[in-house]
Amino acid sequence: MSQTVQPEWIAADWGTSNLRVWAMGSDGNVLAEASSDKGMGKLTRDEFEGAFLELAADWITGPTTVVACGMVGARQGWAEAKYATVPCPATPDGYARAETRHPDLSVHIIPGICQDSPSDVMRGEETQIAGFLARNPNWDGILCMPGTHTKWVHVSADEVVSFQTFMTGELFATISQNTVLRHSVGASGWDEATFEAAVDEAISKPEKMAANLFNLRARSLLQGTSAEVSRARLSGLLIGAELAAARPYWLGQQIAVIGAGKVAGIYVAALAQQGVPATQVQVESVTLAGLTAAYKRLKG
Amino acid sequence: MSQTVQPEWIAADWGTSNLRVWAMGSDGNVLAEASSDKGMGKLTRDEFEGAFLELAADWITGPTTVVACGMVGARQGWAEAKYATVPCPATPDGYARAETRHPDLSVHIIPGICQDSPSDVMRGEETQIAGFLARNPNWDGILCMPGTHTKWVHVSADEVVSFQTFMTGELFATISQNTVLRHSVGASGWDEATFEAAVDEAISKPEKMAANLFNLRARSLLQGTSAEVSRARLSGLLIGAELAAARPYWLGQQIAVIGAGKVAGIYVAALAQQGVPATQVQVESVTLAGLTAAYKRLKG
Repeated sequence: MSQTVQPEWIAADWGTSNLRVWAMGSDGNVLAEASSDKGMGKLTRDEFEGAFLELAADWITGPTTVVACGMVGARQGWAEAKYATVPCPATPDGYARAETRHPDLSVHIIPGICQDSPSDVMRGEETQIAGFLARNPNWDGILCMPGTHTKWVHVSADEVVSFQTFMTGELFATISQNTVLRHSVGASGWDEATFEAAVDEAISKPEKMAANLFNLRARSLLQGTSAEVSRARLSGLLIGAELAAARPYWLGQQIAVIGAGKVAGIYVAALAQQGVPATQVQVESVTLAGLTAAYKRLKG
Repeated sequence: MSQTVQPEWIAADWGTSNLRVWAMGSDGNVLAEASSDKGMGKLTRDEFEGAFLELAADWITGPTTVVACGMVGARQGWAEAKYATVPCPATPDGYARAETRHPDLSVHIIPGICQDSPSDVMRGEETQIAGFLARNPNWDGILCMPGTHTKWVHVSADEVVSFQTFMTGELFATISQNTVLRHSVGASGWDEATFEAAVDEAISKPEKMAANLFNLRARSLLQGTSAEVSRARLSGLLIGAELAAARPYWLGQQIAVIGAGKVAGIYVAALAQQGVPATQVQVESVTLAGLTAAYKRLKG
């Protein structure tokens, strides 16, 4: 059960795996928040409204605007919000309206952004970018947004100019859980020196990935390498290869890393190792700032 | 039920996922064969004998020698057969004896081979190599052995000199089944031109792997790229990166590719694309030849 509050509007960050909602006051402060694991990936179109009301029903005491970002706007989401194409502002026009049977509910979904060449898409990150730019007007540079699918985004003149997505986070998860390396790589633990060496190794020889992966298994069999050390090495190999490919993005640029604490810290450290200073930004705060910017725009 | 035959000995290829057994006649011919999915990965130590007898009990009418290769000799196998270390013959000494309660059964397990630097291991492939060398005495060159864990093996003077394992096959499986690419990559189908272009791309820019993977998803979303084309591209990207890293093995060398028909053919084609001719060898025939060589050695 959520608290009984009377928000001016409701913000929603609705990804593939999770749903988070915030009851927003008239002065932009958060009155209450709630979350569930009813991400887009688990819902059919008919089930979105129920999943939302499970968390937020008590907050609706009159006509209420909901602003949502993320995979909720995908083709399989509550309503499809068509991609804007780069170059474009991070707060594009054309919010999708989701169908609802609730008489007081008005649901707006923020479109994602796509790029034709090379083909790429984002949903959710555009709102984090918009929030970051609302906080840092006229900021030019590169946003590194680590996660399941890490985005490197070139931002200039308050527009998204280009971006590139790396499947690094999802590769780390599936390799450590679904391959022979599940016997060798721990679910937690860390070794900083191992991580740094692996980043350097992968930057200089990124083609050796598939060999380096099996080598992790062989090291644990023959040398008894610990699960923690193997975990740091796997992470370093994957992030090092990503940094090698993302060099055109980060070389000589101003960089901010937006992400959850731990993984953002790992990227900041790996960039520092390459002599590249990067600012770390907490993801939740810019998500809320981006949803707020979208709400203000909607209200004109 | 297997046929009622009276073999001189029984050959077994016992990997992580499957068990295959052959009833062998005195002149080296196969009298009968059987298989099950009771691979090492599904069995506790106590269950190996039962899994074997399920297939071969009818073949045992008197004292019977069994020669087995593969993961059955791992630490978690029926009996641990300690690795021989390179450089070494592919038919090393020191077969492990597995415990059995059957009075007529004598089970010998062929050791795998390991390498200290870089750390690497094989179990099962050494027997295929021995079989290949039994068929091709004094052959010097490189064996490429595609599979879940592809091995590149330098063979000279009837010894394994060095080798390197790539997790390419397992990466292909887990990426196409357990990541967001499962929506984009088909379980079958092929496009040769796409495969060739992806091999070239990955050889020249192997660091772009994680970006190229997400790009497959974006292409299917934005351009409607077919599941068959995506499948060929994923395969080409992974094999291209492997070829880039394995160049010191294949450049200017005599090469034989030992594998199951389809995947061996793909590697032969990818090598041909690099101007490297390779012979294709059927894996089952060399496995049996290797087990036969081990049996003969055992009988002195």
